[in-house]
Amino acid sequence: APSIDIVSRALQTDMVIPNWVTFVDQIRTLFNECKEIREGQVATYIPQLARQSPNLWAVSLCTVDGQRASFGDVKHPFCVQSVSKAFNYAIVASDLGADVVHSYVGQEPSGRLFNEICLDSTNKPHNPMVNSGAIVITSLIKSKTNMADRFDFVLNQYRKIAGNEFIGFNNATFLSERATADRNYALSYFMKENRCFPKETESLTDALDFYFQLCSVEVTCESLAVMASTLANGGVCPITNETCVDPNPCRDVLSLMYSCGMYDASGQFSFNVGLPAKSGVSGAMIVVVPNVMGICLFSPPLDSLGNSCRGVAFCKKLVSTFNFHNYDCLVHNSNIKSDP
Amino acid sequence: APSIDIVSRALQTDMVIPNWVTFVDQIRTLFNECKEIREGQVATYIPQLARQSPNLWAVSLCTVDGQRASFGDVKHPFCVQSVSKAFNYAIVASDLGADVVHSYVGQEPSGRLFNEICLDSTNKPHNPMVNSGAIVITSLIKSKTNMADRFDFVLNQYRKIAGNEFIGFNNATFLSERATADRNYALSYFMKENRCFPKETESLTDALDFYFQLCSVEVTCESLAVMASTLANGGVCPITNETCVDPNPCRDVLSLMYSCGMYDASGQFSFNVGLPAKSGVSGAMIVVVPNVMGICLFSPPLDSLGNSCRGVAFCKKLVSTFNFHNYDCLVHNSNIKSDP
Amino acid sequence: APSIDIVSRALQTDMVIPNWVTFVDQIRTLFNECKEIREGQVATYIPQLARQSPNLWAVSLCTVDGQRASFGDVKHPFCVQSVSKAFNYAIVASDLGADVVHSYVGQEPSGRLFNEICLDSTNKPHNPMVNSGAIVITSLIKSKTNMADRFDFVLNQYRKIAGNEFIGFNNATFLSERATADRNYALSYFMKENRCFPKETESLTDALDFYFQLCSVEVTCESLAVMASTLANGGVCPITNETCVDPNPCRDVLSLMYSCGMYDASGQFSFNVGLPAKSGVSGAMIVVVPNVMGICLFSPPLDSLGNSCRGVAFCKKLVSTFNFHNYDCLVHNSNIKSDP
Amino acid sequence: APSIDIVSRALQTDMVIPNWVTFVDQIRTLFNECKEIREGQVATYIPQLARQSPNLWAVSLCTVDGQRASFGDVKHPFCVQSVSKAFNYAIVASDLGADVVHSYVGQEPSGRLFNEICLDSTNKPHNPMVNSGAIVITSLIKSKTNMADRFDFVLNQYRKIAGNEFIGFNNATFLSERATADRNYALSYFMKENRCFPKETESLTDALDFYFQLCSVEVTCESLAVMASTLANGGVCPITNETCVDPNPCRDVLSLMYSCGMYDASGQFSFNVGLPAKSGVSGAMIVVVPNVMGICLFSPPLDSLGNSCRGVAFCKKLVSTFNFHNYDCLVHNSNIKSDP
Repeated sequence: APSIDIVSRALQTDMVIPNWVTFVDQIRTLFNECKEIREGQVATYIPQLARQSPNLWAVSLCTVDGQRASFGDVKHPFCVQSVSKAFNYAIVASDLGADVVHSYVGQEPSGRLFNEICLDSTNKPHNPMVNSGAIVITSLIKSKTNMADRFDFVLNQYRKIAGNEFIGFNNATFLSERATADRNYALSYFMKENRCFPKETESLTDALDFYFQLCSVEVTCESLAVMASTLANGGVCPITNETCVDPNPCRDVLSLMYSCGMYDASGQFSFNVGLPAKSGVSGAMIVVVPNVMGICLFSPPLDSLGNSCRGVAFCKKLVSTFNFHNYDCLVHNSNIKSDP
Repeated sequence: APSIDIVSRALQTDMVIPNWVTFVDQIRTLFNECKEIREGQVATYIPQLARQSPNLWAVSLCTVDGQRASFGDVKHPFCVQSVSKAFNYAIVASDLGADVVHSYVGQEPSGRLFNEICLDSTNKPHNPMVNSGAIVITSLIKSKTNMADRFDFVLNQYRKIAGNEFIGFNNATFLSERATADRNYALSYFMKENRCFPKETESLTDALDFYFQLCSVEVTCESLAVMASTLANGGVCPITNETCVDPNPCRDVLSLMYSCGMYDASGQFSFNVGLPAKSGVSGAMIVVVPNVMGICLFSPPLDSLGNSCRGVAFCKKLVSTFNFHNYDCLVHNSNIKSDP
Repeated sequence: APSIDIVSRALQTDMVIPNWVTFVDQIRTLFNECKEIREGQVATYIPQLARQSPNLWAVSLCTVDGQRASFGDVKHPFCVQSVSKAFNYAIVASDLGADVVHSYVGQEPSGRLFNEICLDSTNKPHNPMVNSGAIVITSLIKSKTNMADRFDFVLNQYRKIAGNEFIGFNNATFLSERATADRNYALSYFMKENRCFPKETESLTDALDFYFQLCSVEVTCESLAVMASTLANGGVCPITNETCVDPNPCRDVLSLMYSCGMYDASGQFSFNVGLPAKSGVSGAMIVVVPNVMGICLFSPPLDSLGNSCRGVAFCKKLVSTFNFHNYDCLVHNSNIKSDP
Repeated sequence: APSIDIVSRALQTDMVIPNWVTFVDQIRTLFNECKEIREGQVATYIPQLARQSPNLWAVSLCTVDGQRASFGDVKHPFCVQSVSKAFNYAIVASDLGADVVHSYVGQEPSGRLFNEICLDSTNKPHNPMVNSGAIVITSLIKSKTNMADRFDFVLNQYRKIAGNEFIGFNNATFLSERATADRNYALSYFMKENRCFPKETESLTDALDFYFQLCSVEVTCESLAVMASTLANGGVCPITNETCVDPNPCRDVLSLMYSCGMYDASGQFSFNVGLPAKSGVSGAMIVVVPNVMGICLFSPPLDSLGNSCRGVAFCKKLVSTFNFHNYDCLVHNSNIKSDP
């Protein structure tokens, strides 16, 4: 709305971050400051996560006009884990429409633990970012075709969203995840009893295998930053200019990431940082500055709520430095923040 | 961030809504469409609310550059009720700083009923928009002075935020509210047991009286729209150009309104409408389009969750018509929405 | 304790109900009165239960000295369903001792629904009468042998407890139960995550199959009354004089039936009736008058909490007629109740 | 029921404990064994409780035929605290009838903390032994007369139940209790909102004052043992032979003490000890062996759930030594327990 005719011209003629070199210098400073943080514990519930080095640290940015900046271990592959929840939602909502998807899953923060065995007052999972909701979302993806085709479909979508950059698969992680899946089986049987799944879902083992397979997709900090930038850019990949996610699902996934993306710290994160984000147990984290850029952060040590310590710290520094907070005032601001 | 140098110039030289006449025509259409809605029930728990006509319907806008538009019963006085929670928070956070305020109250959506007798895991109220949090917030306002001065202080702040437009007081509403206050007394004693109040709070009767008095402040749709526009404008009243709320508290109250402002429909409202809003049991409602405008809606019939039926319907139409949703993409949008 | 030397002589020389003919006449009257009750719904979640006639009604008694009385459809076979929970607990506590058993399951009424997915504050099921506790109890029975031998072991114990009267197996019920087991699978995976099962439990499918098989054991009202009388008689079957349940487990199962045996009506039932009882979804119900007799009631229509309507009504009439309530005073009583 | 014609003769001609001297010796042994227990903490939330010596230890018995035995500090006065809940219920149920009383309060164990702010599914307090229920019970006592007469009425009833032995009042305890009453005020306002009180209850301050006054009634171990023996004897005081509590309320209060009398340890206590009991924060505790005797135990150090450590230990030893457990089998017992 802010005098969009002017803004649009600006966006078309200028770059979204006019002073790129200065901006990248500031980001490098934040990257180095966060490197000093030694808090948190690497997840240990499966060996594939436990073996990750706590020293890995990577930051990668991709703007909506395709400018890139990367620092640290940005080529190191890691599993997307729960970050997949955001993209799976975007993919299925583009495929089926929000109405169909939200007849199966709500939009509310649950106020409960992310893996708690509970449904909302209409017997649906609270939202697509908690485990129950994410499992149902996964079960909706191309639900009438076979498992191999369903996996291929999602992987292709991930590749499009990532502008054809690195997307792999870590089979050992998948096999470990499915072997420690008691809670997710409990959740799924509870949801089956409450008829939360689409009619086509016959085998919970298949449904959960698919869910764990998508958690075990591998990316690098660089490729995941491109995926985030696609969400920042209304669903159009800035690298390929291809439309991967429809506008409304893209808007909606940002809403859900904003309110529910950081596990049980979501409320605090959206208050303090004011940006849509999604974290995963591997230490991966994406942050979206809508209409500006996607950011990927990767550092395995997690805080007590399951979010990357360095990742969260970086985000706080980011919004202290730049006027990226959702509700920063563009005119009467506090004069301390720079406008990149 | 979006090429702010250009945007800023635009904001300084042009009006934020360039085609004002067209825009006002579109708003008039939405106003008339919503007039047809006959759903909802006027609140009846006190006679002062029960007597409100269900036919009252008013919409008033005020942009950050002071342009105004009003439709319907915009001079009819009504009590702010829970809309006061937003302004009380903004006032006390400007006075004491966010750190002090948030040592008493959290920032998370509670996932519970707005008046449920519960605290968060640190024994604080979940946020300043649920009753428990709002009562504590009120108790923090000029807590060391006498009741008369405290009331005067807030009323003066309200007047500044409203650009000196109509601010009154409905004593009958106050007297009725305090006479039906069992739940709020239960909440307050529960909080007292958990040491939620500042040391200075000696009398719960005084604390709740003050809380109810601020709920009983009277406004009109016009004056409350100016109050909303001050929040849209980073805390600077667009009518007087006076700074009334500090930038950070202004940003923070918008965050809290976004996630917690619409009672137990907050998650759904922020997902569907994507704008910070706060409703009250009188049928009052404010909506903020950050950096653009404040809107006040007034219609007494409420839905089952306590929000004005016409008010909510107006907001949904608003974001279907204009690209005002928080996460509407400015470039790759769906081409259906107009850009006012 | 009440002058037990005298009581003991009485119990050894006289019959526990001296005026048997009068007593049986009174019971017949109660039986006929309850026949008029037409409330309740037959369970329908599996066809084998749905097909039960709502008109079936049977009452059978067996005293601790082996006197018998039977009214109605007392030879009609039905599945024990949840009544098995009481006997399974008694069997495993006799086999392993209370200490081992209660290291896996608590003794408290849960205050929650009988099939709610929750554990107590030490992460154990609340008690052996809720589904979670009963599943764990079943998993403890001869846990190191094969499935066939485990089933045979329990069936043999049931036969001993029933004085070799009718014990059958309804395979169709078993197959239907296991096919509608979502909630119990959810519970079991939740418990597996919380390490509620013994180490030997490798397959939840096996564990639940065994649990459902024991629910599908068939009895008649007559044979189940003998089973109840064994519990009334300190674990010694009054028909065979064989010790089937050890004294402490027998005492303990009565405690648990008293506090937790009637699903979510347990508190009200123990208050009003004051006798240990256990009901099942087939319409089966046992009631124990300790040191006096076991009673079996059978009538398929259930009240909203899952207990047989006629069964509960019969029990209320029983304690209004006789001084059988746990806390009826033997000397200063209300003079209205007869002393059989 | 057990051959009651014979039992009754025994009860009328013999003493209920035939070998009194031996029995008293065994009790003395248990008293001395428990004296060694040094666990637990004296309650400190008010100074009057905090000042109680942790060394105080008293046991007093009174049989239904009036035989007495006392050990330790049996003349030391202490406040009944929550033990009053049992007698207040018995008094009001005798006065108004169970139907009236239970239209205000349930009979179920709550499965929650004794002072939790919650009601049952019909919006009544769960039972008369949790704080919410006890406050409502108190409000029902002679609800239409003035405060002084209401207090006198209860005190007179207490004196009758205690066979005119010591009943006093500790005004300092009352004043301290009312000054630390936040939780009980929260509970009471919550109940007022839910219309839990009788119409006559206008002032919550009066209602809570009365409740705290009854908690502040003073007894000695000896006089409270007589009160317990009246409950053991069907409501007839064994010392005066006066009927103080009607038979049904007497039966009902024993049911409630059995299921809900020991705070959050009630389930475990009834499972292990199998006797109706009620404890208070002063370290007081009564235990009833129905038809045999009342027992008072007094020792201020409490376990984590608020029950007297020595008191609970004494009860466990008692039922290991004698066949007093509710469900001990009188014939086929474990041969270890003596039959006093």
